[in-house]
Amino acid sequence: MKRVKKIERLAKKVLEQIRQMENPFIEIPIRTLKNIEYDEKTGRIILKGEKGKRYFLRVGQARKFMQTLLVAAKVKELLKEDVSISIRDLYYALKRTIPGTRENTFDEQNESDPIIEDLEVTLNMLREEMHLTCDRKGYAAGNITIVDAGDELDLRRMGAGGWGIPSNVEKDRVKFKECEAEFVLVVEKDAVWQRLNEDKFWKKHNCILITTKGQAARGCRRLIHRLHHELKLPVYVLTDADPWGMYIYSVIKRGSINLAYLSEKLATPDAKFIGLSIFDVDKFGISKNVTIKLKEIDKKRIAELMNYEWFKHKRWQKEFKEMLRRGYKLELEALSNKGIRFISDVYLPTKLKEGDFLP
Amino acid sequence: MKRVKKIERLAKKVLEQIRQMENPFIEIPIRTLKNIEYDEKTGRIILKGEKGKRYFLRVGQARKFMQTLLVAAKVKELLKEDVSISIRDLYYALKRTIPGTRENTFDEQNESDPIIEDLEVTLNMLREEMHLTCDRKGYAAGNITIVDAGDELDLRRMGAGGWGIPSNVEKDRVKFKECEAEFVLVVEKDAVWQRLNEDKFWKKHNCILITTKGQAARGCRRLIHRLHHELKLPVYVLTDADPWGMYIYSVIKRGSINLAYLSEKLATPDAKFIGLSIFDVDKFGISKNVTIKLKEIDKKRIAELMNYEWFKHKRWQKEFKEMLRRGYKLELEALSNKGIRFISDVYLPTKLKEGDFLP
Repeated sequence: MKRVKKIERLAKKVLEQIRQMENPFIEIPIRTLKNIEYDEKTGRIILKGEKGKRYFLRVGQARKFMQTLLVAAKVKELLKEDVSISIRDLYYALKRTIPGTRENTFDEQNESDPIIEDLEVTLNMLREEMHLTCDRKGYAAGNITIVDAGDELDLRRMGAGGWGIPSNVEKDRVKFKECEAEFVLVVEKDAVWQRLNEDKFWKKHNCILITTKGQAARGCRRLIHRLHHELKLPVYVLTDADPWGMYIYSVIKRGSINLAYLSEKLATPDAKFIGLSIFDVDKFGISKNVTIKLKEIDKKRIAELMNYEWFKHKRWQKEFKEMLRRGYKLELEALSNKGIRFISDVYLPTKLKEGDFLP
Repeated sequence: MKRVKKIERLAKKVLEQIRQMENPFIEIPIRTLKNIEYDEKTGRIILKGEKGKRYFLRVGQARKFMQTLLVAAKVKELLKEDVSISIRDLYYALKRTIPGTRENTFDEQNESDPIIEDLEVTLNMLREEMHLTCDRKGYAAGNITIVDAGDELDLRRMGAGGWGIPSNVEKDRVKFKECEAEFVLVVEKDAVWQRLNEDKFWKKHNCILITTKGQAARGCRRLIHRLHHELKLPVYVLTDADPWGMYIYSVIKRGSINLAYLSEKLATPDAKFIGLSIFDVDKFGISKNVTIKLKEIDKKRIAELMNYEWFKHKRWQKEFKEMLRRGYKLELEALSNKGIRFISDVYLPTKLKEGDFLP
């Protein structure tokens, strides 16, 4: 119970401070934007070193101090009982009126959520490791056998539905067993995943096929991270040729600004972008008819991406500039205009064979 | 290929009309609100009999007539090739400029989607039967073995993730095999499903556990329908005690207004509402602290539900009136305030034992 120990250590420190008649405090790394940076060496968005102190005897901090210890105590209980709950359950489980006052421990969930993040960064422990689940999305199928919560699952035989990627994919929950797959293909859209899965693309090309269903949930990002770092599988990401799809890729690869403190566990800096590139329109002779005119909001977002440190690579700058010059974007489903199986029979095999990836 | 025959019959009729030098038309049941009613006998929201004619040689209808035949032809192709695509793929696959004109077959997906619905109702064939997929949601686990797209899946051994319910759960795709389960428990929220699945609630109470993850997708509704009608399993639905949760139940049971023409295939009129009832607050001694004050939009929605024909039962009227009187609603996660396992160890077993359901 290494995790329980970590929490106990936190609590013992506070106890010690009280015994010394000091004003008890907890030291918490700061998660504001000015403490976040892109680390070129590791290729991740990370937290800089700055820390803050949360005191018990300080008017503006006493409530948060109490809340921090309440959440920590509940997490210890979850770990000891080996039970998981959602972050909304946690809020409800801890909500009560403090006897003799009209003060509630928590008034809204937006008070307990940041405390969980504080503990994640302070204890260097994912909320999933604390047995707190959150919204999950995403499916997987492919040439690998896994164990999920004690059940062996052959992802080569998961039907049309696939394995629903759970919230918690930590080593003690999800184990990797036989794996022939040579790479991981991550697709943004479930519709495309369904199309590729129906064609058993993962069988023909010996890979693991994952859909994030839009922006990747934490469990999905963690799974991709583990497949890459533990099984040494290359990761290729397939999204729409638009700033939103490209940012989905960016979050998988670099981590996100919101969860910068977790990039070490969630990001996969070696991931590559397989498409769609706006240059694919010419390369594959795609009809202008199925491109979509950029809206103002698209252009604004492209400008933002161009300014991100981690999109400064000249290939990406060229991509964004070209998208703006042409004034259109392209969706994955548009490939169906070239034929229903074009994506699985032509587009992806060509890209893979040529190694035509963006960095 | 009964389905291909249905499409050919439609096309042959048009061909015959042309040969007879008539103005070709297709007869399509009308899907507007005034052609929709609640059928007390079957307990479903259904389409009344009114039909309209879509002519080729009529200015306002020629384009739609062409589009209807284009979609029908593509569906025939999908069925013959045994391949599935999303409705967005279909739009792109059919989009082109008609030679010699500046007219596109389709300009936006909102032109092709209603045509699909027209065909569903005209041919009495679900879009999934036409091999058109749409957004899917929901997970299942429990005491049943199924076959999904040729793969046998033991839903008793699906880990923490569960089986991702696919878009198409028709008989030729999803088959039911050994089933010991005695009922189906449908929960609105995935967080609650995860909690119950972790406790192996379905094992202890011998059931199948499904989450709709909010409003149920078509695949999920169809699966519940099939489990009830083919395996004769009672269906119990668990949602928040608020008008939104109760409407999720209503759609599973009665069908929806939008898809009234599909109620026969999607609705499960025998489904029962297991909770949350606003009266559970007293019955289970739930703290007022974890109830949520009704907002104006909640009250408005409750008033709407009270006016629906199919919510006129006095038990439901009493429920809604009481919710308005108390001025609060209650979320499933709020049960965690009574203990993390309260929902699986106390709440649900009590409700099941007493048969304390709303109709």
